[in-house]
Amino acid sequence: MPESWVNSAERIGADLHLNLSADRGSRQAVLSRALREAIREGRLAPGTRLPPYRSLAADLGIARNTVASSYAELVAEGWLAARQGSGTRVAERAAPPRPVRTAKKNPPAPPRPAHDLRQGQPDAASFPRTAWLAASRRALTAAPHEAFGPGDPQGRIELRRALTEYLARARGVRTTADRIVICSGFAHALRLLFGGVLRGPLAVEEYGLPFHRGLLSAAGVRTVPLSIDEQGARTGELVALKGVRAALLTPAHQFPTGGPLHSERRAAVVDWARSQQALVLEDDYDGEFRYDREPLGAVQGLDPERVIYLGSVSKSLSPAVRLGWMVLPEHLVGQVLEVKGQREAWASVLDQLTLADFLTSGHYDRHVRRMRQSYRGRRDQLVAALGAQAPHVHPTGIAAGLHAVLRLPPGTEGEVLRAAAHQGLALDSLAGFRHPDAVAPAPDGLVVGYATPPDHAYRAAVDALCRALGPGPEA
Amino acid sequence: MPESWVNSAERIGADLHLNLSADRGSRQAVLSRALREAIREGRLAPGTRLPPYRSLAADLGIARNTVASSYAELVAEGWLAARQGSGTRVAERAAPPRPVRTAKKNPPAPPRPAHDLRQGQPDAASFPRTAWLAASRRALTAAPHEAFGPGDPQGRIELRRALTEYLARARGVRTTADRIVICSGFAHALRLLFGGVLRGPLAVEEYGLPFHRGLLSAAGVRTVPLSIDEQGARTGELVALKGVRAALLTPAHQFPTGGPLHSERRAAVVDWARSQQALVLEDDYDGEFRYDREPLGAVQGLDPERVIYLGSVSKSLSPAVRLGWMVLPEHLVGQVLEVKGQREAWASVLDQLTLADFLTSGHYDRHVRRMRQSYRGRRDQLVAALGAQAPHVHPTGIAAGLHAVLRLPPGTEGEVLRAAAHQGLALDSLAGFRHPDAVAPAPDGLVVGYATPPDHAYRAAVDALCRALGPGPEA
Repeated sequence: MPESWVNSAERIGADLHLNLSADRGSRQAVLSRALREAIREGRLAPGTRLPPYRSLAADLGIARNTVASSYAELVAEGWLAARQGSGTRVAERAAPPRPVRTAKKNPPAPPRPAHDLRQGQPDAASFPRTAWLAASRRALTAAPHEAFGPGDPQGRIELRRALTEYLARARGVRTTADRIVICSGFAHALRLLFGGVLRGPLAVEEYGLPFHRGLLSAAGVRTVPLSIDEQGARTGELVALKGVRAALLTPAHQFPTGGPLHSERRAAVVDWARSQQALVLEDDYDGEFRYDREPLGAVQGLDPERVIYLGSVSKSLSPAVRLGWMVLPEHLVGQVLEVKGQREAWASVLDQLTLADFLTSGHYDRHVRRMRQSYRGRRDQLVAALGAQAPHVHPTGIAAGLHAVLRLPPGTEGEVLRAAAHQGLALDSLAGFRHPDAVAPAPDGLVVGYATPPDHAYRAAVDALCRALGPGPEA
Repeated sequence: MPESWVNSAERIGADLHLNLSADRGSRQAVLSRALREAIREGRLAPGTRLPPYRSLAADLGIARNTVASSYAELVAEGWLAARQGSGTRVAERAAPPRPVRTAKKNPPAPPRPAHDLRQGQPDAASFPRTAWLAASRRALTAAPHEAFGPGDPQGRIELRRALTEYLARARGVRTTADRIVICSGFAHALRLLFGGVLRGPLAVEEYGLPFHRGLLSAAGVRTVPLSIDEQGARTGELVALKGVRAALLTPAHQFPTGGPLHSERRAAVVDWARSQQALVLEDDYDGEFRYDREPLGAVQGLDPERVIYLGSVSKSLSPAVRLGWMVLPEHLVGQVLEVKGQREAWASVLDQLTLADFLTSGHYDRHVRRMRQSYRGRRDQLVAALGAQAPHVHPTGIAAGLHAVLRLPPGTEGEVLRAAAHQGLALDSLAGFRHPDAVAPAPDGLVVGYATPPDHAYRAAVDALCRALGPGPEA
């Protein structure tokens, strides 16, 4: 028995000798860590008696008290067991668990494509770091102490006030700060709304983001597609949909087909909501980015009691900021806050304060203007390249937003996607956005995001696209 | 009919005259806003014909084209209707909706108490603004562009690496960055875990946060209380609980009663988890704050495959940062990420990057040390004041954490709470934390948080508490 602990003590001592100089923390902390490690790795087996304080202290050149405290710590944690008269032993149940496998269970991330023209992301390289940091400094310096306390699930009043002003000015939204609820983005808003406030079935456009449909389906909400024509979603179909009391639309820029909702349909959907006591959910995901057409204010302005307006900074600034907002009819505010809960004010308060400053100081407008110009340039470049190199392909939905839809000759979509993949070009097919219950024929097409690549990589991505499209049948 | 529009035009002109100078945006934007407002407020009634471009332009001293563009914008938005030969009219369906009531539906916030000794919040005035801003500047400057892109639902690798090192060093947690999932705090973690990964019933301690029980109950999880004695939760009761395959514990510092879980029980709960293929959820909500006792490492270190370790910055830094983490057994990582979803990486990436820097630069340790000293001072002040002014009350659970439990003579709790309320002192009663199914007798007591008031207000809050407690029966 003496041998067992002498050997252990030597090994412990040897290990500690290495660790004591290299590691952070007090000697006691370092010793405790080394002992835990030795027990975990099985070098100190269950039942092994540890050396007396004095021996180990002498061996390591540290104080006896330090060893005693370290033993006491490990006893309290369950690593060691101290029994009167039999010294300190490694606890019986501390047998080494099966070693942690280093192999990851989750699938490895797919390799990054050589060219990325998928939709959905703004240009990450253009995040206004300097202006954001300056806003953050101003906001955090000026914030009252209570800003660092438990917080309001509705969101910081500074941000709600700034949004009230901004959304009225830029998007024609009619609200007061009382009716805005800050959230972490559009998906969070949907989850809150369908987590106890609204119920399905929900009318949606026959083209839309599969992620949103999946999220709704996971929340038990059935979605019913409205067909889309050149005037946007056919809102006239709503009256025939039994039991549907809510419709999710992208009026400023149908996602992804790209047209605005016609003025008569904007009016019709509000009329429908009024007559049916229904609600319109307005997803204004990229309303700030329009190029060749008049600004188109939010439908919400037509009837704030019948439209829930949903926006975020995910396209205008960055999805990394995780901030969005709901502008709610008055009668829903209390219910949404109840679902959101007293402690689920999930959006970072620091980012909320910073965004409030970013908006009121005019930096948000400046950034949006700059990005509008940049994206317009990219769009023009795309249109010109297509005209020159793939004249058989007609880009549509390009008056606004961060993506274009390319309609392809029937039966060619698969071929083009294969040719793109061959060149390492990531692309979204139009079919991928189609609602599974949509009835109209599915045209061949691509959704091309022109915001994702950094500036220096954009030209090459467009060239790869043109090669994948080929010169067309006439060439 | 001419009169109607002449009057309207005059009124519009008058309104605009005020707004054109005061408001932001182009003349067209200002005119459009003024027209929308006039329609909303009913000054321009449905069917009213608007003045011709030329008249209104002359009236306002602006270009005819500006008026034409503004009309076109409002037609597109559904406010106006343009019919060949009959000019532009206010759309029929744009009847003013019932005016937005300014009264709020949600109940007004309760008045702030004069003194606040409720538990649960760190000292908001001590948030390290300067150090945090410096870390933010370093982190955002150094971050790669992709950090501002769509992001990883698991959380930034920089933060997961920093936590791996920190948690091993400070809390004895044994993990790799692969097994950490960043979330928005403890509540978010619970929701993720019980939103498709784990199932109830769940063993909990008979005293705990009602908010957590409510959150679990809302997720359909039944909770079963374990009784608590002077050695912490009676983990021996677990084997008798049918169907229970998970236990939520606060081993470092039972919440709120305040003791550490005894070493034998730490061992026992891990043994139970191993033999039952069960899981321990370790809520390490304030593990950094200990004063008079040895540091007590996480139970997770005993068996990383059977313990889910949950932590956050809510107590150590601020709940406003909304950052927490789960350290998961390897086999759960994939499932948790699936629930978290590809786009629900809800914690701010900017804050994640900042916290990673804050940890690796040593500022986190420094802040925790500073706060430990500050809270220890407050605790000592509380204990001294109670000893002098309310010697019949014995504070317990004070070796660690941000709160103390005061056991009261039987039958006096209500009286003390009334006396406290009378002085504007907000306090939590011990009974409020008791599980509704707990069987042991419920002692009278208070939970006193000593972190909430700012420094300058602490003394007065303690004095108010002592007055509420009174000098006791002997005096």
